[in-house]
Amino acid sequence: MLAELEVIPVGTNSASISGLLAQVATLIDQSGLDYRVGPMGTVVEGDWDRVMNLAKQCHQAMLQSAARVMTTIRIDDRKDKPGTGRIIQKVQSLEAKVGKPLKK
Amino acid sequence: MLAELEVIPVGTNSASISGLLAQVATLIDQSGLDYRVGPMGTVVEGDWDRVMNLAKQCHQAMLQSAARVMTTIRIDDRKDKPGTGRIIQKVQSLEAKVGKPLKK
Amino acid sequence: MLAELEVIPVGTNSASISGLLAQVATLIDQSGLDYRVGPMGTVVEGDWDRVMNLAKQCHQAMLQSAARVMTTIRIDDRKDKPGTGRIIQKVQSLEAKVGKPLKK
Amino acid sequence: MLAELEVIPVGTNSASISGLLAQVATLIDQSGLDYRVGPMGTVVEGDWDRVMNLAKQCHQAMLQSAARVMTTIRIDDRKDKPGTGRIIQKVQSLEAKVGKPLKK
Repeated sequence: MLAELEVIPVGTNSASISGLLAQVATLIDQSGLDYRVGPMGTVVEGDWDRVMNLAKQCHQAMLQSAARVMTTIRIDDRKDKPGTGRIIQKVQSLEAKVGKPLKK
Repeated sequence: MLAELEVIPVGTNSASISGLLAQVATLIDQSGLDYRVGPMGTVVEGDWDRVMNLAKQCHQAMLQSAARVMTTIRIDDRKDKPGTGRIIQKVQSLEAKVGKPLKK
Repeated sequence: MLAELEVIPVGTNSASISGLLAQVATLIDQSGLDYRVGPMGTVVEGDWDRVMNLAKQCHQAMLQSAARVMTTIRIDDRKDKPGTGRIIQKVQSLEAKVGKPLKK
Repeated sequence: MLAELEVIPVGTNSASISGLLAQVATLIDQSGLDYRVGPMGTVVEGDWDRVMNLAKQCHQAMLQSAARVMTTIRIDDRKDKPGTGRIIQKVQSLEAKVGKPLKK
């Protein structure tokens, strides 16, 4: 399955939070799951337990740095498409239907 | 912590999905966690593992009925406010600040 | 259509933001649109332009108080069910399918 | 500001919806706004009115093809960083803090 993770600290002194988000990005990068970083969150691919274990790690790490954390997890799961690779195939399939390359 | 769960089946032929959502609502109602149903999802209160175990049950139950499921989990967690009761207190606190009762 | 609005300020020093959210709740309460406040956001009902005009007001009001604002708008729209009332009917329909009252 | 758009049709016969999403992607590609397609949605950059006008076009186009549409718009807006370019800078800033390139 695919899951987009967004972890937002609330009550930080600064509106710049990339230093805090770097912890989360490092955990995802070291998780062994395939992922793609985007401007509004990171999409990871894996089975429920591995993805949610990673989401918990990211959420708990942020709670070390901020008193309040808002985490959003958006999941797209298809039983007719088991296995991995959808993290790449979804965009490829979209480009095929549009008939031209899209900005990625 | 608080978590809003929304579980959407895709590819169901009909746009009416309350029959499928009833399975999810029943699982939440029987979970033992405190919850509030709203027009766009259900908020549950509990620790990470219990909430996520319930989210997994709901997601997997929907996958029995639909080939594709989009689940969104939005979490609000405060280490400065441990314990339960925030599911009621957040709206009460908002009403106190607004200075009047709100539609609930 | 139904739309859930959540407006989160980032970089506010304090993790307690209900004072800031009260501004948003007041705007929604005064908008004339039907709404329901919940523990994780407020659902409003109306056509696209009125709902989005209200969302803009709420977002801009929060930007007066915080340097950075994360706003989430989740929309559920059915052309086979025009008109209003779904803000109540969705939960009623769910309870009818579950066969018992749910916590609201 | 940045906004992630996700437009999901409900009640389609098939769980495969990339044909329907291609309409949305084409509208975004032709909008003149900068954007990045990802596996779980598309992020666009622009001011409130231009972004929301595009979101409305995408949502209405999908309503031509499906009786029910669930659209999610997640906004990240900073008054301390006006102008455009954050769609690229956020990921660059994250990589600088992590100290290595990330998968994009």
